[in-house]
Amino acid sequence: MNIQEIIAKKRDKLELNKEEIEYFITNYTNGSIADYQAAALVMAIYINGMSDEETTNLTLAMANSGDILNLSELGTVVDKHSTGGIGDKVTLILAPIIASFNIPVAKMSGRGLGYTGGTIDKLESIPGYKTNLKIEEFIQNVKQNGISIIGQTLNLAPADKKLYALRDVISATESIPLISSSIMSKKIAAGANKIVLDVTCGSGAFMKNLKDAENLANMMKKIGNLANKKTVCVITNMEEPLGKAVGNSLEVIEAVEFLKGNMQQDVKEVILELGSYMMKLANKGENIEENKKKILENIENGKAFEKFKNWISSQGGDISFLKNTNNFKKAKYVLPVVAQSNGYVASLNAQKVGTISMNLGAGRIKKEDIISPEVGIVLEKKIGSKVQKGEVLAYIHANNENLANIQAKNLQMVYEIKDQKPELKKNILKVIA
Amino acid sequence: MNIQEIIAKKRDKLELNKEEIEYFITNYTNGSIADYQAAALVMAIYINGMSDEETTNLTLAMANSGDILNLSELGTVVDKHSTGGIGDKVTLILAPIIASFNIPVAKMSGRGLGYTGGTIDKLESIPGYKTNLKIEEFIQNVKQNGISIIGQTLNLAPADKKLYALRDVISATESIPLISSSIMSKKIAAGANKIVLDVTCGSGAFMKNLKDAENLANMMKKIGNLANKKTVCVITNMEEPLGKAVGNSLEVIEAVEFLKGNMQQDVKEVILELGSYMMKLANKGENIEENKKKILENIENGKAFEKFKNWISSQGGDISFLKNTNNFKKAKYVLPVVAQSNGYVASLNAQKVGTISMNLGAGRIKKEDIISPEVGIVLEKKIGSKVQKGEVLAYIHANNENLANIQAKNLQMVYEIKDQKPELKKNILKVIA
Repeated sequence: MNIQEIIAKKRDKLELNKEEIEYFITNYTNGSIADYQAAALVMAIYINGMSDEETTNLTLAMANSGDILNLSELGTVVDKHSTGGIGDKVTLILAPIIASFNIPVAKMSGRGLGYTGGTIDKLESIPGYKTNLKIEEFIQNVKQNGISIIGQTLNLAPADKKLYALRDVISATESIPLISSSIMSKKIAAGANKIVLDVTCGSGAFMKNLKDAENLANMMKKIGNLANKKTVCVITNMEEPLGKAVGNSLEVIEAVEFLKGNMQQDVKEVILELGSYMMKLANKGENIEENKKKILENIENGKAFEKFKNWISSQGGDISFLKNTNNFKKAKYVLPVVAQSNGYVASLNAQKVGTISMNLGAGRIKKEDIISPEVGIVLEKKIGSKVQKGEVLAYIHANNENLANIQAKNLQMVYEIKDQKPELKKNILKVIA
Repeated sequence: MNIQEIIAKKRDKLELNKEEIEYFITNYTNGSIADYQAAALVMAIYINGMSDEETTNLTLAMANSGDILNLSELGTVVDKHSTGGIGDKVTLILAPIIASFNIPVAKMSGRGLGYTGGTIDKLESIPGYKTNLKIEEFIQNVKQNGISIIGQTLNLAPADKKLYALRDVISATESIPLISSSIMSKKIAAGANKIVLDVTCGSGAFMKNLKDAENLANMMKKIGNLANKKTVCVITNMEEPLGKAVGNSLEVIEAVEFLKGNMQQDVKEVILELGSYMMKLANKGENIEENKKKILENIENGKAFEKFKNWISSQGGDISFLKNTNNFKKAKYVLPVVAQSNGYVASLNAQKVGTISMNLGAGRIKKEDIISPEVGIVLEKKIGSKVQKGEVLAYIHANNENLANIQAKNLQMVYEIKDQKPELKKNILKVIA
């Protein structure tokens, strides 16, 4: 077997077998296959596609290219993953809700590049919260409190890391087999038995339309099933940012508010849908509508927020910030963005809001970039909101006055205001269970 | 403009414009575009193809990536190029024939890897022949004697060199746009105004069947026309080696014999066809059949051989070797290969004969390998020959007894002898004028 033969097969639209895919992944990870050879193969995969079996074999080979987190002593662990979006604070809210039903939450989360930080960056905006626990401590935490979320201390799916970076520079990102195997390889390496995927769809997501999102969801579900990890996909709307806050501590504050009962409608629908399926997969309730009620109960009776505080304090976080979110450090400048005319918000492009967030310093462009936890955007009006000229649409939180002014103007342009009330998209577009 | 956008366009089957192709070639040649990005683009080109215009723009960009040999002071120069074969001594014979009609021959020729050396290696087997003349000396030679052939002293089409090496390791060689642009870029950089291409077809050629050979020929003709270099393609049979000799000095000897009037039928047909079209392109005769007669005349009256001797001596070669080819150094061992049965030679796979030639030391595997000029093969029987058991089929010329014995056995196996006389292929399969 050699890499030239493997490239030639895929180039000629033939199916690669398990051994060939494993040969490629093993030898690419260890450096015996050059980047230019991997690039040729990846482009051939992008253009000619992969069968379900090939995609599953690629996923498993990448999952097995590094450490595998062993969570077997915790019983059934249901993981949740989002394909990415703007203002996505779902993990922060959902993790303690799930744990409040005695379903173990054991999650390694990323920092990520892009518009805001990852879940780990958001958690680190809570003073004292430690993300780099040792694996034994992490497992012990889950056993004791039912929940722990840490950074990626293990070397999970290094082949995926290498391929992901390569795909980025050779225009080979938007491929269903490559995206789905990338996501699922990390999930499998992260040790979950069952997986609920939030497949985002719209201007702020990888998948811009429902058809592509469905294709991606179906493929990931197939991989999950073939890899013996029961998988449910929920396709959610990411046309505008999720909830009000886009930033790091700003999103933590929104999560805290949510658990205290002040729920934004879109976040609420997404949380209830994802959470209910996680409960179902964990055998804690067959009926989705019943599960939604139970989740709302655990928010109302304070159990979910209690679990949140337990979790944060068990990892060293200062829960006085959760009790009173005014304790969080504020950005130096908080600038209102006001409506220029009467009407309805017709669009609020999520990606453009994300870019403003990144420009403010809430996200990273390069790995080495340092995030400002307190900066970002708070959206007071969203698509469909009726607005009057001069009314506040949103607030820019920035540490630099000039930057604040520029980004406030940018955000004003992102708000499209029309006379007619727009037709509203559903927040939950489809469930593939 | 950036390389990711260019890759994405070709990935999505869109046509690249002139600026994009030039951007790629310029920046790949100077190293700003990485090999892995070039590999992704090349694979996308391989799979999705290129239009005639794209292929022409690629050819011109590669031709312009390095030096361009300026032959303008010589008037109309007609170049001849073969897409490669075994026993191909055509240039050695054709160059002096063409020059004998006062058509200037100014050629830079390669060494090349593979089964035997290139034209330059063959010429160097004539003691004293200098292949590394300065450009001024080379031009002066052509002005004075009407002919000069030297090695590639200029940096011709470096982009092609780089891409060719890359294609080899990523399984992207057999692509009509990539092969044709590679060949034509070198021809254009080498300065000819008009080009006759010998497109070989069969077991010893890149193109194994007539359809592929026609596609390649049509594409190269189109590129030539679009680049304002009138081009004629002659598709010739390369199912078995051309002529009798495969080696370096052995092929020079066959060339000398040819010019003295001892012509092998297949070599004769190829020489007459290519030569007649070169004369036509040089405005030295409209009628192909008339041109063939003129060529035979210049062989019979000794003008062509006289030109050959002038040429060789003007570049320092010892023409006593041409007058008496017995002066050439002989290999230490000359072993006959004899027929094992009565019948007809049914096949004599050119590629397999080439491999034997390379194993004997007549060709190079790596650039650094040293060629033995005197070793090789002389074929006494070719496809269609009637043979009797014990009759000599061929001679192996080797410098090592053990190697001679092994390769003699191998060559015996390459000769397929059957009871029925095989149907003979034409030597000239098609002319695309």
